[in-house]
Amino acid sequence: MATKGAMLYEGKAKKVYVTEHDDLYIVEYKDDATAFNGEKKGQITGKGQLNNAISTIFMEMLNSRGIPTHFVEKLNDREQLVKKVEIVLLEVVVRNVAAGSLAKRLGLPEGTVLPKTVVEFYYKNDDLGDPLINDSHIEVLELATKDITTKMEQYGRQINDILVDYMKQRNVILVDFKLEFGITPAGDLILADEISPDTCRFWDADTMEKLDKDRFRRDLGGVEEAYQEMLRRLGGVEV
Amino acid sequence: MATKGAMLYEGKAKKVYVTEHDDLYIVEYKDDATAFNGEKKGQITGKGQLNNAISTIFMEMLNSRGIPTHFVEKLNDREQLVKKVEIVLLEVVVRNVAAGSLAKRLGLPEGTVLPKTVVEFYYKNDDLGDPLINDSHIEVLELATKDITTKMEQYGRQINDILVDYMKQRNVILVDFKLEFGITPAGDLILADEISPDTCRFWDADTMEKLDKDRFRRDLGGVEEAYQEMLRRLGGVEV
Repeated sequence: MATKGAMLYEGKAKKVYVTEHDDLYIVEYKDDATAFNGEKKGQITGKGQLNNAISTIFMEMLNSRGIPTHFVEKLNDREQLVKKVEIVLLEVVVRNVAAGSLAKRLGLPEGTVLPKTVVEFYYKNDDLGDPLINDSHIEVLELATKDITTKMEQYGRQINDILVDYMKQRNVILVDFKLEFGITPAGDLILADEISPDTCRFWDADTMEKLDKDRFRRDLGGVEEAYQEMLRRLGGVEV
Repeated sequence: MATKGAMLYEGKAKKVYVTEHDDLYIVEYKDDATAFNGEKKGQITGKGQLNNAISTIFMEMLNSRGIPTHFVEKLNDREQLVKKVEIVLLEVVVRNVAAGSLAKRLGLPEGTVLPKTVVEFYYKNDDLGDPLINDSHIEVLELATKDITTKMEQYGRQINDILVDYMKQRNVILVDFKLEFGITPAGDLILADEISPDTCRFWDADTMEKLDKDRFRRDLGGVEEAYQEMLRRLGGVEV
């Protein structure tokens, strides 16, 4: 077991605490929701528990399929035990269907099935609004070595293959998702952060109904219900 | 010789005409200046002649150094004879020093010397504001094959090496520049468009004074004089 020590960091949706173990952190999921780089703020009742439960299911599944992740175990309703990592300041976004910023950037109608998987790197920097960047920008900013970014892209595509199939069986289209990675003290690259309706776009395969944070971003209502529905489809216990 | 036929296309700074030769076009340089994706409009007296003269010098120099370009010959003050190409809908931007959109995107002070050359691809699409895109976007939009984009980046870096050195001898820092490429009817990739103070950032190496279109973009005054000065440093005849 591990017990919560000092808070190390408070993000928009989670808090991170040290533990008595040098190599383990505790992550606490909050109900806070933000969008558009923090311009829109709110709360989604029960989101902390829901995302903790949902991300646990995804992370355990990915661990079992050979994707190294930071996830160790779910501790309680809002908390997870995770491996200590140094977060790489790059977000990897993998897309199967045009939506959000990609639809705008490329002038594609939202819902366009992409003929090839799109992988994007964003610079994790709130002050700059998490801009899209390319390989030469990453080199200049020294955010990661070429080896690391190549591996991040490979993991991103591999996780996409796994998740697309997994969600399809649950009648959900995986439109796109964001991943974050970290480096362990031993120097290994592993998946960190969370996989949840906060970080993915999930559409019901029959109705195309949005089951993710776009309900909050776009004021569509039924936000908590959508997260609940996602947990239900993943076979999780209602929270 | 070639004579002007029907106008094929009018761009922001140039007009393109067919000729009696299937494989040759005439390009006419206008005095019109635009910036910020056409939001700012104006005229720079004599810009057409200046850019025609300046681009001729650059293109002849690059041709002589083995870079294939569309340039055939300067016909008169405002006109050039060029090879017919189909323009690739990608702008290649090569950067040595942080300025403009790169400074904003990466949060670097303008003037920061980049530790590595930055190469960027932009989708040539006025309606979308010429967005930055990456390899997987190019694949999805089918704007060019991987072979073509690899070659475009290689040419971009090669041209950068040549131009940096060439400008240094003229006491000018080549901050960044934009290139466009085209495919000939025979299927060859060649440099097209122009190289001028409209498409490059040139700074005086001693005073850091801007000798390019930023004088127009930022209302710094002395726009025509800056273009004249660039032509003078390139050894061109004053127009």
